[in-house]
Amino acid sequence: MKSQADENHPELAAALQHLLSSGGKRVRVAITLLMGGMLKADPDRLITLASSIELLHTATLVHDDLIDGSLLRRGIPTINAQWTPAATVLTGDFIFARAAKLAAETDSVEVMRLFAETLAIIVSGEIKQLFGKRLLAARSVYEQKIYAKTASLFETAATTAAMLTNVGEQERACAKQYGYEIGMAFQIIDDVLDFTGEQATVGKPVGSDLRQGLITLPALLYLDQYPEDSEFRAFLAGKPAREINFDVLLQNIRTSGAVERAVLEAERYIERAIGALVIFPDCVEKQALIDLAQFTVTRSK
Amino acid sequence: MKSQADENHPELAAALQHLLSSGGKRVRVAITLLMGGMLKADPDRLITLASSIELLHTATLVHDDLIDGSLLRRGIPTINAQWTPAATVLTGDFIFARAAKLAAETDSVEVMRLFAETLAIIVSGEIKQLFGKRLLAARSVYEQKIYAKTASLFETAATTAAMLTNVGEQERACAKQYGYEIGMAFQIIDDVLDFTGEQATVGKPVGSDLRQGLITLPALLYLDQYPEDSEFRAFLAGKPAREINFDVLLQNIRTSGAVERAVLEAERYIERAIGALVIFPDCVEKQALIDLAQFTVTRSK
Repeated sequence: MKSQADENHPELAAALQHLLSSGGKRVRVAITLLMGGMLKADPDRLITLASSIELLHTATLVHDDLIDGSLLRRGIPTINAQWTPAATVLTGDFIFARAAKLAAETDSVEVMRLFAETLAIIVSGEIKQLFGKRLLAARSVYEQKIYAKTASLFETAATTAAMLTNVGEQERACAKQYGYEIGMAFQIIDDVLDFTGEQATVGKPVGSDLRQGLITLPALLYLDQYPEDSEFRAFLAGKPAREINFDVLLQNIRTSGAVERAVLEAERYIERAIGALVIFPDCVEKQALIDLAQFTVTRSK
Repeated sequence: MKSQADENHPELAAALQHLLSSGGKRVRVAITLLMGGMLKADPDRLITLASSIELLHTATLVHDDLIDGSLLRRGIPTINAQWTPAATVLTGDFIFARAAKLAAETDSVEVMRLFAETLAIIVSGEIKQLFGKRLLAARSVYEQKIYAKTASLFETAATTAAMLTNVGEQERACAKQYGYEIGMAFQIIDDVLDFTGEQATVGKPVGSDLRQGLITLPALLYLDQYPEDSEFRAFLAGKPAREINFDVLLQNIRTSGAVERAVLEAERYIERAIGALVIFPDCVEKQALIDLAQFTVTRSK
């Protein structure tokens, strides 16, 4: 990934260095490498593919942070916090270009197609959110949103790894399902951490989703339980955010058991992720994929 | 191209409709279709490829206009003139995704690679311009800039068309050269029109390049002839633009013969573009490629 910086641009190289050194959990990379390893993909092509997917993810984060005006990610300043909007847009575009180049270097047209399709799904999800005229507290909307935002790329990370091998349709479908389920769980836990995490861990202010009008699973489950909460209803009906007492609302959600129920839902996704692996023979990589799935939920505790 | 709008987003579909109906000359589309037609590429794959290239071009324009704060293109309002920066960034990203999808649908890994590489060259050129600390009046800088900005995609439009056929290395090299030369000429003429065009034709205020600190070929040729022009030198040395009398400077450049010499240079590129076609047997498409090259310069007159 680091070799994709252009030596002609010291500023860009520094930005890429900054982005990549901020780390993150590299879960997508792990999924691609482990799935491909389990299915005996060529290691060189697999590393190229994993880098491509992580760079695609990185590029979308760069544009996302600009769009949301986020100043911190993983506890360190975002690109847009340091640079102009113009430089941020172009940095994201450059990383897209590099991700596409690496995807092409896998020499698989199938991989390229899915790569492009996934980018369209991610961006389309963001556009939907941007043009969403009002707050929508509906389970189906939430599931579509977290699929577009997170699970689609997890699914692609697993599916494209299988595409580099000669496994059959059933194995591919299981790889895809593993990626999908772990991706859904991952985003639910991210959304849970927005309610329960410490700012230092999450890298952004606690409760920021709800303050920005994003109705995630804990809030949905709270609403199921207390459909008459007047403050929440007023917020959903369009009462300005500055007139809402978020501290009380967040405290109510935290103490209602909704957060714990959201974690239980994530655990069900994880069970299905692990279940999707049952057709594969036992091996080191399979065990690591199981551990990775379990870790996804453990980090909420 | 129009079918690439997502039916789930009326706003996005409207934006894409707006962008595509604004037309433009579709020179890149013409190059791909004619070159591929001459070399007997499959028509369906060729149309997919041409759409992909035009959409890649469109996506870069959407982000460019945002970055430059341009409010008009081809005489009609830009996306950023009507929408928020966030919506503009995402519209560009969505069009990138669709361009990549169409490129993948050509089923050629080679095409995909060159497509990704060209996107990197275009964005890299913009980054270079953005971080350029001072005005550079050097021929080599100008040539690199117009290659990155325009000729690279013209070159790719012609080269990828050849990639869809089974012609040999020499034919490919000639196709590539045709694209390169016509692309360089096209951008020189665009830069000339910034000095000579009417606002209604160019779609933006006349002389805007120089006012924004972009030193294009007519200005370079003027400087070669009048290296001691004190106003121009002061501008290059960093005198604030608001203290420069651009009306006088533009008038001096216009009457110096520099504009005509820039057109002569473009004509030399066009001669080389037409020369690159000499190895191909005569046919309707070849004649159209010649006419297209000649038209590139004619529109400046």
